[in-house]
Amino acid sequence: MSSAPTDRPVFETSVTVRSPELDSFGHVNHAVFLHYLEHGRFEALERAGFGWSTLKSEGRSIFVVRIVVEYLAEATHGDELLVRTWADSFRRTSMVLAQEIVRVDDPAVIVTQSEVTAVWVGPDRRPTRVPNALREGLMHLETSPPDRV
Amino acid sequence: MSSAPTDRPVFETSVTVRSPELDSFGHVNHAVFLHYLEHGRFEALERAGFGWSTLKSEGRSIFVVRIVVEYLAEATHGDELLVRTWADSFRRTSMVLAQEIVRVDDPAVIVTQSEVTAVWVGPDRRPTRVPNALREGLMHLETSPPDRV
Amino acid sequence: MSSAPTDRPVFETSVTVRSPELDSFGHVNHAVFLHYLEHGRFEALERAGFGWSTLKSEGRSIFVVRIVVEYLAEATHGDELLVRTWADSFRRTSMVLAQEIVRVDDPAVIVTQSEVTAVWVGPDRRPTRVPNALREGLMHLETSPPDRV
Amino acid sequence: MSSAPTDRPVFETSVTVRSPELDSFGHVNHAVFLHYLEHGRFEALERAGFGWSTLKSEGRSIFVVRIVVEYLAEATHGDELLVRTWADSFRRTSMVLAQEIVRVDDPAVIVTQSEVTAVWVGPDRRPTRVPNALREGLMHLETSPPDRV
Repeated sequence: MSSAPTDRPVFETSVTVRSPELDSFGHVNHAVFLHYLEHGRFEALERAGFGWSTLKSEGRSIFVVRIVVEYLAEATHGDELLVRTWADSFRRTSMVLAQEIVRVDDPAVIVTQSEVTAVWVGPDRRPTRVPNALREGLMHLETSPPDRV
Repeated sequence: MSSAPTDRPVFETSVTVRSPELDSFGHVNHAVFLHYLEHGRFEALERAGFGWSTLKSEGRSIFVVRIVVEYLAEATHGDELLVRTWADSFRRTSMVLAQEIVRVDDPAVIVTQSEVTAVWVGPDRRPTRVPNALREGLMHLETSPPDRV
Repeated sequence: MSSAPTDRPVFETSVTVRSPELDSFGHVNHAVFLHYLEHGRFEALERAGFGWSTLKSEGRSIFVVRIVVEYLAEATHGDELLVRTWADSFRRTSMVLAQEIVRVDDPAVIVTQSEVTAVWVGPDRRPTRVPNALREGLMHLETSPPDRV
Repeated sequence: MSSAPTDRPVFETSVTVRSPELDSFGHVNHAVFLHYLEHGRFEALERAGFGWSTLKSEGRSIFVVRIVVEYLAEATHGDELLVRTWADSFRRTSMVLAQEIVRVDDPAVIVTQSEVTAVWVGPDRRPTRVPNALREGLMHLETSPPDRV
């Protein structure tokens, strides 16, 4: 999968591993990373101009329709992780977001790489257009973006 | 992704959606399906001859290294689902398992399709050979398999 | 805490422990039991005549305001558990449900005992009356209840 | 339940609500708070001198045997919470920790209050003595504690 681009914003969210997120193999269960990734995506959307409260007040939902995750390193208790999120591509009602999780104390260690395809859904639970403002916010670098890498 | 094969065992595990597994969009959160799928895989391994207690007593682990999931239909409170698991391919220390989740009341409705690549790991947390007995159990139809579709 | 009564319905729901519900101590994490218990409560409500879909269509919610859980035995991979739920007491807008979880293969082993206080909430997110029909369904034995112990 | 004491350390851990932690009622599910609380307890233990890695290397576990939680306010997407943890009392092999969760932006709002009883368990899974060093670290104020309120 592709690594973080330089021509569009890369949004960063930090995550601390919590003890009950470890499974019986003593590391973060693979399903838990999907929680970190979803959290990172909603943070990215918020900073790109389309916040959770707007989503809810407009009765919209975002449904994940496809996910590919590669797990490259383990994470365990006490680890501080950084979730990086950026837009990969758009269609009329869906978007592909790319993400990677790295260690805060050693960002060269990539823990996971992933691509998530999500569809925008209206109050009638049918696909609806990706908001233009969001597309802009995800694709264009501002002069002084607040949390650009 | 491929559909359930006829030349090797397909293991089935039923799952009932539990209320706290719904997210704020009113359906089963996409991360929760990874719980159902992991549960289905360990059930399949158990029936193929390599149970959880054997795994633990031998100090082995199975680490997920890649997952692809396509979400094709929603699931919600009260739904009864069937997780189908079968072997796709093997390498020396890893295996690819294919899975699909369907509705019990209408098995034609595919809820998710997925492929999971997992590595077998020894007590030293380094890759180790996939047990031969398991490979046999996953690949060969017995005369009267207990839970063949 | 009190044990299952004989003068009112005791609703039973079976639960299978799933592998990702184990934590790094190799047993079901204490937080996971709250999922089993919530699942058991909504099943009980459904059978007592107040189903999830009714709840949602009326825009009501049920908020847990207090929980006491005693953990008496461990549960681990492959365990089949039985969640027993019954009404303890009611106030105008709240109810106390008592629950215990036992092992299916040895119901004398009590895994958890608990009491949950929950408030009924209307579309305006303010407390609302406990439905009378539900109170009846939870308190009175029918001639041939479907899942009475 | 009692409020934070002044004669012993109160350990603070911040927690950010993540989107998949909301349930279908649109707020943090009551079971999720047990994750926040467990996370807060292990952070407290670590700072009191008994870290996770020590626990694991010595083959010890800490089993929750009783939990009482009062839910006083809702939490939802984007909320920043503070988990406060302090020792309430000790017996030979068990301890009672008290905890409260407040809002970071308005610490007067108590979200939950709780008491957790936990037993120390050795490699043989039988109760073992609470480490003296931990008891000291939890009970005595140092001259300049790093994260005292």
